[in-house]
Amino acid sequence: MANKAVVLLSGGLDSATVLYMARKKRFECLCLIFDYGQRHRKEIEAAKRIARVSGSRYRVIKLDLPLSSSSLTNKKIAIRKGKQGIPPTYVPARNTIFLSIALSIAEDTNATAVFIGANALDYSGYPDCRPEYYQAFRKLVRLATKTGREGKEIKIYTPLINLTKARIIRTGIKLGVPYELTWSCYRGGKKPCGSCDSCYYRQKGFQEAGIKDLL
Amino acid sequence: MANKAVVLLSGGLDSATVLYMARKKRFECLCLIFDYGQRHRKEIEAAKRIARVSGSRYRVIKLDLPLSSSSLTNKKIAIRKGKQGIPPTYVPARNTIFLSIALSIAEDTNATAVFIGANALDYSGYPDCRPEYYQAFRKLVRLATKTGREGKEIKIYTPLINLTKARIIRTGIKLGVPYELTWSCYRGGKKPCGSCDSCYYRQKGFQEAGIKDLL
Repeated sequence: MANKAVVLLSGGLDSATVLYMARKKRFECLCLIFDYGQRHRKEIEAAKRIARVSGSRYRVIKLDLPLSSSSLTNKKIAIRKGKQGIPPTYVPARNTIFLSIALSIAEDTNATAVFIGANALDYSGYPDCRPEYYQAFRKLVRLATKTGREGKEIKIYTPLINLTKARIIRTGIKLGVPYELTWSCYRGGKKPCGSCDSCYYRQKGFQEAGIKDLL
Repeated sequence: MANKAVVLLSGGLDSATVLYMARKKRFECLCLIFDYGQRHRKEIEAAKRIARVSGSRYRVIKLDLPLSSSSLTNKKIAIRKGKQGIPPTYVPARNTIFLSIALSIAEDTNATAVFIGANALDYSGYPDCRPEYYQAFRKLVRLATKTGREGKEIKIYTPLINLTKARIIRTGIKLGVPYELTWSCYRGGKKPCGSCDSCYYRQKGFQEAGIKDLL
């Protein structure tokens, strides 16, 4: 029987790549898609399509958290490109919430792994995308869970953490990731805005990889 | 202006005591009450009443997580008193989920503290009620958040962690905690079953404190 994994799937290109990496490792994947009031709700539909195309199960989890301090959840705050420091697109403790729910479902279903597409190179400077944060979360997992107390492990995989966006895309192309189905733009309009941080890193990645973005 | 705190309020006697301790420290409290599919849903109504009586705001957060491995969320599993090891009432990663959502709301609303009524003495042996788990979570908080990156702090308070149930009750009586409004029994019937772990520790606490339980 295949090992089971819970994969955090946002609908963007990083998490789609991670899903295909997990499948390549022969995990049977359950994708978690979070609806947390993000203005780019389009990514939710993108995530569902990617899960389906990859042949994986998914579950959409609605979080009723009307957070007002992030420009991703409060339309009164402008999405601007990050200059210095942590940009307004930062959502308080988002990855900690996502990971703890993934951990809970992993333990509940006897999955041995959680995959997340965090990246600390071509990224917006979010604190919960850095390697030291994941080291601390791994320690927490061992202390928090029954599984950990019994000496077994639920592994937290961050296979993209130290890759450039170009490298991620090249890896994904080899694995057959359907990048044309992914959605990155924070604005979530009909077409990508081309100017938000997320569009910026996507364009940079495809350019540096020498690959055409077919979105 | 008063400092703000987010208080995890279950409706049981520990978290009610913690709410009154936070208020004694002059925090303006927002109580988070989780509806996670627990069979003792009665505690949700109890928590609302306690928040109201204490004069605090509250928010009920619904988590759509049909976890099947815990006897608190799956009625097919018997609630039995814990003998050895971690009992079937353990809910995978529950406190990690609750704390991360509390952390997110705290950061979003500029609260400086999160309070949780975890207790590692008269308890069922849940891994996420032990001091070392909270130490690891505090470290995570510093790494996970914008607040932590800016050198400020969101403190995680566990004022009951090393108290006996009797001591908790004596403390609460002095603070005016309305214990008659709290609900502990895991079975959530009309009256407390008197035989589950949660009833056991409650009875033990009141007996040792020499105080009559007016529930």
